[in-house]
Amino acid sequence: MAYFSKHYHSPGTAPGTLIVRGAAAQPLSINLIDYTEAGVEEHQLDSPEQCRSFLEHDSRTWVQVNGEVNPDMLRNLGAVFNLHDLALEDVINTGQRPKVELYDNQVFIITTMPVYDGTRLELVQVSLFMGKNYLICLCPLAEDPFEPVRKRMRQTSNVRFATRGIDYLLYALLDLIVDAGFPVLEQFGDQLEDLEAELLERPSQQTLSSIHRLKRELLILRRVLWPQREVITTLMRGEDEFIHTETLVYFRDCHDHSIQIMELLESFRDMATSMLDIYLSSISQRTNETMRVLTIIATIFIPLTFIAGVYGMNFHNPASPWAMPELGWYYGYPMVWAIMISVTVTLVWFFKRRKWM
Amino acid sequence: MAYFSKHYHSPGTAPGTLIVRGAAAQPLSINLIDYTEAGVEEHQLDSPEQCRSFLEHDSRTWVQVNGEVNPDMLRNLGAVFNLHDLALEDVINTGQRPKVELYDNQVFIITTMPVYDGTRLELVQVSLFMGKNYLICLCPLAEDPFEPVRKRMRQTSNVRFATRGIDYLLYALLDLIVDAGFPVLEQFGDQLEDLEAELLERPSQQTLSSIHRLKRELLILRRVLWPQREVITTLMRGEDEFIHTETLVYFRDCHDHSIQIMELLESFRDMATSMLDIYLSSISQRTNETMRVLTIIATIFIPLTFIAGVYGMNFHNPASPWAMPELGWYYGYPMVWAIMISVTVTLVWFFKRRKWM
Amino acid sequence: MAYFSKHYHSPGTAPGTLIVRGAAAQPLSINLIDYTEAGVEEHQLDSPEQCRSFLEHDSRTWVQVNGEVNPDMLRNLGAVFNLHDLALEDVINTGQRPKVELYDNQVFIITTMPVYDGTRLELVQVSLFMGKNYLICLCPLAEDPFEPVRKRMRQTSNVRFATRGIDYLLYALLDLIVDAGFPVLEQFGDQLEDLEAELLERPSQQTLSSIHRLKRELLILRRVLWPQREVITTLMRGEDEFIHTETLVYFRDCHDHSIQIMELLESFRDMATSMLDIYLSSISQRTNETMRVLTIIATIFIPLTFIAGVYGMNFHNPASPWAMPELGWYYGYPMVWAIMISVTVTLVWFFKRRKWM
Amino acid sequence: MAYFSKHYHSPGTAPGTLIVRGAAAQPLSINLIDYTEAGVEEHQLDSPEQCRSFLEHDSRTWVQVNGEVNPDMLRNLGAVFNLHDLALEDVINTGQRPKVELYDNQVFIITTMPVYDGTRLELVQVSLFMGKNYLICLCPLAEDPFEPVRKRMRQTSNVRFATRGIDYLLYALLDLIVDAGFPVLEQFGDQLEDLEAELLERPSQQTLSSIHRLKRELLILRRVLWPQREVITTLMRGEDEFIHTETLVYFRDCHDHSIQIMELLESFRDMATSMLDIYLSSISQRTNETMRVLTIIATIFIPLTFIAGVYGMNFHNPASPWAMPELGWYYGYPMVWAIMISVTVTLVWFFKRRKWM
Amino acid sequence: MAYFSKHYHSPGTAPGTLIVRGAAAQPLSINLIDYTEAGVEEHQLDSPEQCRSFLEHDSRTWVQVNGEVNPDMLRNLGAVFNLHDLALEDVINTGQRPKVELYDNQVFIITTMPVYDGTRLELVQVSLFMGKNYLICLCPLAEDPFEPVRKRMRQTSNVRFATRGIDYLLYALLDLIVDAGFPVLEQFGDQLEDLEAELLERPSQQTLSSIHRLKRELLILRRVLWPQREVITTLMRGEDEFIHTETLVYFRDCHDHSIQIMELLESFRDMATSMLDIYLSSISQRTNETMRVLTIIATIFIPLTFIAGVYGMNFHNPASPWAMPELGWYYGYPMVWAIMISVTVTLVWFFKRRKWM
Repeated sequence: MAYFSKHYHSPGTAPGTLIVRGAAAQPLSINLIDYTEAGVEEHQLDSPEQCRSFLEHDSRTWVQVNGEVNPDMLRNLGAVFNLHDLALEDVINTGQRPKVELYDNQVFIITTMPVYDGTRLELVQVSLFMGKNYLICLCPLAEDPFEPVRKRMRQTSNVRFATRGIDYLLYALLDLIVDAGFPVLEQFGDQLEDLEAELLERPSQQTLSSIHRLKRELLILRRVLWPQREVITTLMRGEDEFIHTETLVYFRDCHDHSIQIMELLESFRDMATSMLDIYLSSISQRTNETMRVLTIIATIFIPLTFIAGVYGMNFHNPASPWAMPELGWYYGYPMVWAIMISVTVTLVWFFKRRKWM
Repeated sequence: MAYFSKHYHSPGTAPGTLIVRGAAAQPLSINLIDYTEAGVEEHQLDSPEQCRSFLEHDSRTWVQVNGEVNPDMLRNLGAVFNLHDLALEDVINTGQRPKVELYDNQVFIITTMPVYDGTRLELVQVSLFMGKNYLICLCPLAEDPFEPVRKRMRQTSNVRFATRGIDYLLYALLDLIVDAGFPVLEQFGDQLEDLEAELLERPSQQTLSSIHRLKRELLILRRVLWPQREVITTLMRGEDEFIHTETLVYFRDCHDHSIQIMELLESFRDMATSMLDIYLSSISQRTNETMRVLTIIATIFIPLTFIAGVYGMNFHNPASPWAMPELGWYYGYPMVWAIMISVTVTLVWFFKRRKWM
Repeated sequence: MAYFSKHYHSPGTAPGTLIVRGAAAQPLSINLIDYTEAGVEEHQLDSPEQCRSFLEHDSRTWVQVNGEVNPDMLRNLGAVFNLHDLALEDVINTGQRPKVELYDNQVFIITTMPVYDGTRLELVQVSLFMGKNYLICLCPLAEDPFEPVRKRMRQTSNVRFATRGIDYLLYALLDLIVDAGFPVLEQFGDQLEDLEAELLERPSQQTLSSIHRLKRELLILRRVLWPQREVITTLMRGEDEFIHTETLVYFRDCHDHSIQIMELLESFRDMATSMLDIYLSSISQRTNETMRVLTIIATIFIPLTFIAGVYGMNFHNPASPWAMPELGWYYGYPMVWAIMISVTVTLVWFFKRRKWM
Repeated sequence: MAYFSKHYHSPGTAPGTLIVRGAAAQPLSINLIDYTEAGVEEHQLDSPEQCRSFLEHDSRTWVQVNGEVNPDMLRNLGAVFNLHDLALEDVINTGQRPKVELYDNQVFIITTMPVYDGTRLELVQVSLFMGKNYLICLCPLAEDPFEPVRKRMRQTSNVRFATRGIDYLLYALLDLIVDAGFPVLEQFGDQLEDLEAELLERPSQQTLSSIHRLKRELLILRRVLWPQREVITTLMRGEDEFIHTETLVYFRDCHDHSIQIMELLESFRDMATSMLDIYLSSISQRTNETMRVLTIIATIFIPLTFIAGVYGMNFHNPASPWAMPELGWYYGYPMVWAIMISVTVTLVWFFKRRKWM
Repeated sequence: MAYFSKHYHSPGTAPGTLIVRGAAAQPLSINLIDYTEAGVEEHQLDSPEQCRSFLEHDSRTWVQVNGEVNPDMLRNLGAVFNLHDLALEDVINTGQRPKVELYDNQVFIITTMPVYDGTRLELVQVSLFMGKNYLICLCPLAEDPFEPVRKRMRQTSNVRFATRGIDYLLYALLDLIVDAGFPVLEQFGDQLEDLEAELLERPSQQTLSSIHRLKRELLILRRVLWPQREVITTLMRGEDEFIHTETLVYFRDCHDHSIQIMELLESFRDMATSMLDIYLSSISQRTNETMRVLTIIATIFIPLTFIAGVYGMNFHNPASPWAMPELGWYYGYPMVWAIMISVTVTLVWFFKRRKWM
């Protein structure tokens, strides 16, 4: 994942401009669920225009748009639901900071859902518009991540969803988005533990690069999860009439989860930083050991080799009593060995005393 | 202890779902104490249903559930005491962040009690429900950690417990949970001191891994103790009618303890981080010393060995006066020793000047 | 870019003193746009005096001053628009901290626009004065960075600019200044990724100096962007009558961008710091490997060389059975090789066990 | 000083329990000063009971208890002055966090006085109870540290102490306790400077352990001084009627001192941390230098030794012109020296170019 | 500059005690400026007593005391202007934390002016008392740093100073004190840049000690500049009648400067810390390179030397075909060279592959 993953128009572009970079990679689908206490209706739409009829009567309407949106479709949607230009720009320029924007009779929410397949962390921007009796959810993934909510809606036969306001649906979606952080962090936690074992037993360049990758992903994840927590706080503050008092207890639960995710994240970041220090210390410890072995071997053999070298000199002057007479002595050779052994013993004693052996 | 130890339902599960991962490892027991100024009654219950009769009259009732709860029993308990679905979900999904949830005529509290047996730190989630005249305490341990409170209750013969409200019992349990941090931190403090001595005298890979383990445990402990402090602050703020003014002084004492525990923890974390730096410096210092010994030995003997090597060459040309005439000199051999000794003396002087010897 | 880039008068100088250090490097141009719903008029002025006529009638007037201002021109401008002495001093002493100063019927704003050409980051101080129906913008660059706004003004034929107050023009300029941070951070993000690859594959002194340069630029950028965020917050707080409620939603968008830029910046700084640690660890890992190769080679060959040295000694005493009889043995030479091979095998086994090979 | 130095009862003990660990090491003395504008009376008491008579009339009474208190004496004191159980428990369980507890007509204050004799830092818990016209001060030291205050009381002949309330006496004692931090920090400052010199000139394992000890003491000192600052803030907030407005200016002065002590402490901690980094860098720099010397010596002599070794080989085949004919050349030996000298010169040139020599 | 530079009386000394340590090093001078709209009068006074006459009439009076004050003179001054004992104690005990103390009809301000001559940073405590129509400024320097203000006062002929209140004079002095930070930080910025170049090109022990000294000075400077910012904030809050609304804009400007100075300081501290990391990395990189050279040379020559050593052995047994027959081979010597060259080529290839050469 790139450090900088925000889409933006070039500075000075008029606010509310809708332009897409490149062609859409994910096909677009619009799914509409209309529900009352009487039952749940599902429709697959071709164009946002088709929503109009559902808005008129009293039912609750959930419009789920999956895949990469195009400017035309967005403008169309904006016209049907009376969405603000700046909000539409934020939908198309993915990589936004999670936020809540309160308009006169509409709430606009940007959130980020982390998706992790074990090797690649992806941050998916989910944009939500909530009005009096409708909720629009735009998600760039082709596959709908909110299928579990739809399932519950069908199963529980309107008991919970239909009796409570549209804000309960908002909670259900936000809760899923926030809770998506738990499996991601669980995987990170497992990776931390694997790295920890590797670190203390056999640190390698590979370990280093894994720690770095982990730190990076935690950092990028943190950048989107901090403001996400604020999003829920803002919604909970209850300054607008959209969130009912009886739904607040659910939002509070969701808020607790988002705090716990942040705390887990921060503690993982702490440990990853600490692991870098451990890595360095561990490598230094190994260098120190290697060094000690080299020093012991070299320090013992270098003097011995010197002694052997001395008696390898060719001072052949039979006339001089000073010309290496040792070479001719009867016990000369054993004497040299005696010297060499005593040198070795002395050095070994020295190393033992210094606790190097 | 794992970095990630929270139990959670897969994202998108309906709120209030009660499912348990795996079979219960700890057998379940329900203990009920009913006390008035007249006396204390203790009962061992088979099912939460049996509590109903005690709720009706004016006495205070403490229901202590030890061991791993199962969904059926929880639903039962919820029905008897009218507990919120989300609260029950939090009880079953252990590893929750400590929190207080204020319902209409009930307080729900999650706390974490640290248990440390010298090698393994365990964090036990204790869940508490307090109503007008009852207190339910759920603790997954098989052995009841609140036995000391029960003992005091029996001894003091209702003087303190029965004359004060149920909030005094809540204080007694919270105080025990908070104070459980002191022996844990005392052990950590002792370990820090042992590590410190080891660090400065004989740092090893083992020391490194101990420091790391300590940092990790302090981090995980901190993650649960910070919100615990907030729990007590929230209770003390006195916005609900459950805590009486005369009990507040006790909560204040408990709050002081929780702050002191946090401050101890933070200072231990600081020292553990500092110890990593000390470790690295200590190892580097040792490498430096080893290096110096190697350099001194090598620097002295390498030139000597070279000199010996020179006079080991076989330039046997009797016809040439340039062919190593030194070998034939009368004082050739002593001269070589003189050269070698002077080289040694020079190098030793050099090392002394640089303070390497 | 220098660490200290603020211009200041020597301490004790009277407030409001206008002095320039050195000659102006950029030629000065004054561009005036006068716009009403009826149309847009553009004028190139020679002196601030010429603005007077435009101020009298009801149109909105944008005075854009590009290039390095001189004291005379500033005093002139101050006289025409009744600008405060201290504000003028801040315009001339570039390198100011971004700020908003609210005067009786005027707002004075200092902002900083980052300009990055891939090798050199430049921070350009843009000073803005906004009155009831005029806006003065002073920018030391010769080339006008606000050309895109002017273009939109001409295109949209007064629809947006003329119907809204002068505060919408202020927003348009501030938005451009804030958004100028995105391309700069995108380039920094790319550089971080390049450095990261370099770091883990082939760290060099060059990598180190690149990381340092990046950290330095991020730090200096941060110093001006933090207060910039406060500038927008102050303007949004709406305590003065200059910002209309309907323009607030645009300022909020601009504020979101400034926060996102800060968060990107902070996360980049975090990564740059982490990279320094990775660098050190990576280098230590390499030193460790080099060391291991040296140790293996030295430890294997030093004993072998010693053995060879022993049998190079010249103990020629035919009379003594102690004088290196091995040299005369029938299998003496193969025996020495056998010893040397077994020493080698033992050492290789030792290194394998220690995982050094 | 131990990391963990708090005394605590085992979790679950009833609040207000008074038990002492071990026998009292310091003998106990109770000193009572009763003063009015008329004069100062001093008494040495045997038991707290004797205080009763002084409480009845209008004078101000200062009860100073030095040495280690026992439960009986404390219970006695509590009965006379109507002290809270929890407060008495805090007096006996030393190592408390400094705090203020406001009771109905009493203030209970715990403070910590640092005592440093150059080698050992001791933290002495001083407990204070202030009522309408009495002040009780309990200090575990055998020698009374408040003698200077007593001296001033006698000298100034009631002018300041007797005309102002008992709160002025409280200020005098707190001021002495807070100011006791200055000489301690002065000594730490001196130690920092000594360490700094040592660090840059001749870093050793000893330096490392001194820095560590200093960090540790600063950390432990900080743990008690932070809350001490809050104690004075709480007292100054003036919510209770005990502190008179005219004494507030003195408390403000005392508060300033406590802030300055904290700031000094924090900056010392910063420097101690920085010193660890300097230490590591300094050691690495030394290792690097040692390394360079070794490399230069080894790199110059190893090739030379090899050359000498080559001509020490015994290829004696008079029949072959390939069998080391150099040995028999007329200028063979000088030629070898020429080769060796040119190798040396080349290597020295190489090292000079790399700035290693 | 010392880490601990505060003067204090020994703990327990009565508040307001005036004692000086050592003899005054700087001679004392008292300069009085009395100004009205009519004109400026300057007087050199011998004793504070002489101020009395100026206080009586309506003019504004500035009493500037330069040099080291003595207790007698201070007591005298205190008597004339009715100054508080504690304030006088703070004047004499230099090294105080900057602060504002509001008395009934007097403001007492302690500020610190940094003076830097390129090698030594000095922090000069300037104490100010402001009353209704007088301002007393005490500065321990012999040379008056406020001469520029006096000059402006004389030049502008009462226009600004006399028409505005005494608070404008206070602003003029504070502004000079705050702005004195700019040249100091400019010099620090230059030093940072010099160190940076040194660091990346040729790090030495000297560089390390320079970075350390810089960090230390920045730390000590920060300790006094943080509270200085608060001093100005407190004055600006306008709770007392001394600062007029029309002077507030000037104080705001001064406040902006003090914030900018703090931000510069913090960013310099950040960079200095980062430089320590760069230093360590740079040294490690160098050690790594040195190591590589040593390893390459040693690894190539050690095996060669061993081979030469083997053929230097004296196995002279003509009777055995196993006794080094190679020595007698026709192509023996060239064969050895062939072996040695192939070993060298292999090792060079190995090093090239590992990117060590």
